[in-house]
Amino acid sequence: MLQIPLDLPALHQARSRIADAVIHTAQWQNDPLSEELGVALQLKLENLQRTGSFKLRGATHKIDRLLSQHRPSGVIAASAGNHAQGVARAAALAGLRAVVVMPVNAPITKVQACRKLGADVRLVGENLEQAADQARRIAADEGLTFLHPYDDWDVIAGQASCGLEMFEDAPEMTLAIVPLGGGGLISGIALALKLQNPAIRIVGVQTEAVPPYRRFLVDGSLEEVPPGAHTIADGIKVKRPGELTRRVIARYVDEIVTVDDNAIAEAIVTLLERTRTIGEGAGVVGLAALMQKKISLRDKDLAVCVISGGNVDMTLVGRSIDYGLASSGRLMSVAVTISDAPGQLLRLIRNVAELGMNIRHVEHRRGELHVPVGMTEVILQMETRDFAHQRELLTHLAGEGLTVRNLLGIERG
Amino acid sequence: MLQIPLDLPALHQARSRIADAVIHTAQWQNDPLSEELGVALQLKLENLQRTGSFKLRGATHKIDRLLSQHRPSGVIAASAGNHAQGVARAAALAGLRAVVVMPVNAPITKVQACRKLGADVRLVGENLEQAADQARRIAADEGLTFLHPYDDWDVIAGQASCGLEMFEDAPEMTLAIVPLGGGGLISGIALALKLQNPAIRIVGVQTEAVPPYRRFLVDGSLEEVPPGAHTIADGIKVKRPGELTRRVIARYVDEIVTVDDNAIAEAIVTLLERTRTIGEGAGVVGLAALMQKKISLRDKDLAVCVISGGNVDMTLVGRSIDYGLASSGRLMSVAVTISDAPGQLLRLIRNVAELGMNIRHVEHRRGELHVPVGMTEVILQMETRDFAHQRELLTHLAGEGLTVRNLLGIERG
Repeated sequence: MLQIPLDLPALHQARSRIADAVIHTAQWQNDPLSEELGVALQLKLENLQRTGSFKLRGATHKIDRLLSQHRPSGVIAASAGNHAQGVARAAALAGLRAVVVMPVNAPITKVQACRKLGADVRLVGENLEQAADQARRIAADEGLTFLHPYDDWDVIAGQASCGLEMFEDAPEMTLAIVPLGGGGLISGIALALKLQNPAIRIVGVQTEAVPPYRRFLVDGSLEEVPPGAHTIADGIKVKRPGELTRRVIARYVDEIVTVDDNAIAEAIVTLLERTRTIGEGAGVVGLAALMQKKISLRDKDLAVCVISGGNVDMTLVGRSIDYGLASSGRLMSVAVTISDAPGQLLRLIRNVAELGMNIRHVEHRRGELHVPVGMTEVILQMETRDFAHQRELLTHLAGEGLTVRNLLGIERG
Repeated sequence: MLQIPLDLPALHQARSRIADAVIHTAQWQNDPLSEELGVALQLKLENLQRTGSFKLRGATHKIDRLLSQHRPSGVIAASAGNHAQGVARAAALAGLRAVVVMPVNAPITKVQACRKLGADVRLVGENLEQAADQARRIAADEGLTFLHPYDDWDVIAGQASCGLEMFEDAPEMTLAIVPLGGGGLISGIALALKLQNPAIRIVGVQTEAVPPYRRFLVDGSLEEVPPGAHTIADGIKVKRPGELTRRVIARYVDEIVTVDDNAIAEAIVTLLERTRTIGEGAGVVGLAALMQKKISLRDKDLAVCVISGGNVDMTLVGRSIDYGLASSGRLMSVAVTISDAPGQLLRLIRNVAELGMNIRHVEHRRGELHVPVGMTEVILQMETRDFAHQRELLTHLAGEGLTVRNLLGIERG
């Protein structure tokens, strides 16, 4: 059996070393949500952690360990997001120089966030892999220490502090649900929990689009991820799982499930509505898995679900919400072909109003090439109560003899 | 001097009566934000309160008091938002029937939220005043007790629990910044603080659009608010200040300032970016006032700013964020007139890309009536770093001889 060189005292030591730098985040029991999901549920709100994600824990511990051995001239990381911010802040607190390499298309807001934290940001490469290669080159050239985002025992020990807090706040917990990308967070949490109570089940959640671990616990295989895979859970879009984290997962994780982007978007909205906090796509996959009933629950389970981060690009928050509203039947978009005569638009809109829908957007398109001459197309976007409400409208308009295309059409079966 | 029948023991008693029903919310010290704003700052996150706002405190206490006197057959409230949800939940916990009267145009999500809490929701009237009149009629007809949202000593005593928590968590505080609408929250907080330390300054913040109290502390006058006034801070859009709350404000509030909708939208974005929590318009006016430097600060001030609620209509969150991004120079929208020839659009977009702006939206409009024949209009929406970045683009395009209209044009002076 491959060695795992971390024991409980080591995890406690790591936690005490970073205690001043990180927040012991809230673990929130939400009764209405527990009732809806049919399980006693607490949300571990790491999205309220400093820098907006758990990554600060591992980065702070890693840098603390480096400083205890020698004083590096500086550190370097490649990341388009949370790891970059965690490293930037941890380095700033330690008075160390930090270089962060980001792909050229990194969102402006994330670049700015790292710069504000004092990091030297370099925009290089088309994607994270290229940025990472470049970061390793710069590390060699400039004598900087490269900080791996997850495949490092010191990083894993740092992330374990999140699990220690969870257990401290809910020693009677029976189930932990944790986002799974590179595996740093789930490895740390699994160690912290299993070494205290081996009966606690650990479930990892991946995004359907990038699921290398999907069959790992079944037959030990890692799934090949197609190039260009896209997901709104970009924080766990990791194609090459870690060597070290894999050892921990093999020994201590009980179940791995996947969720798709629709489910993730719904979870973002649910989290926002229930807790008034924002989670990023990768951060809410655990909640999404619960909402989709992907996780096997037992009677009297007390589940702690980790919301691992909240660094959504601000310019995308609105879109995520709209996507989530559409996925849950609360936003509808239709194209209706009506005859191009006075009074027709009024009639259409009256139909919608009578069903108690709020109209958000109307677009009256004349001269579209796919619409017959003499007809005109109206695009309507409306807030609706649920999918049944939407079907009411479709039935209503069909009854009036109108041609209607449902432009979203993402109703679940 | 008009009587204020609440003393410190009464406030402590109210707090202990509602302790099981409400959350002692987090008071968050954010160092980067303190640095930016030039004052040691803690945010009292009442947006993380159950039901999403402080209103639960007053409603719970009021219902507790009613039950200690007699068992009413039920309670009724008129509200389009937080008061409704507070009353619905407090009544449900007490096993009391709750009727909530909302204007017919109330957002679907808020209606649903009240129904989920078990309230009997009735949609009546075009606005809140009409809904309130109707609620009073229903109260008389059906023998229900009408719960005023703020002008009630029991409600004020309930809201005071928020102030007691603030003082407990920061006994060295010197300044409290509180949203001001009907005045229930600020009255409770002012009593809780001033009765413990009269040196703490209390600042109320109103929305520029509905500022009845603007000159109140100067000359005792209440400003007339024009009908149809609109603001994104709808939670403090109160034209008729309370009789009781006015007494407390006259005696204990030190300063009243106003902020406009642009500033409020910016504050929503800042709160979201800094704390990963969402505040509604009315909830963030205090932060907006700090950001706009509207509040006179003293050396060594320790300010506690109340974020009073987070019940933003989900369908409007995206818009608020865009508005805030635009207000802070991070989103730009321009209409550029180019000649309708091959390659012109490419040239324009290359210009934008070279400045490192992310394009979010492109609309190529041919045949607009205000554009000369042979020309075409392109609408571009881009993410930008700041207003200087935006001016760079405008200068650049002018240099190419292009006609550009800045469609947002909300740059501050």
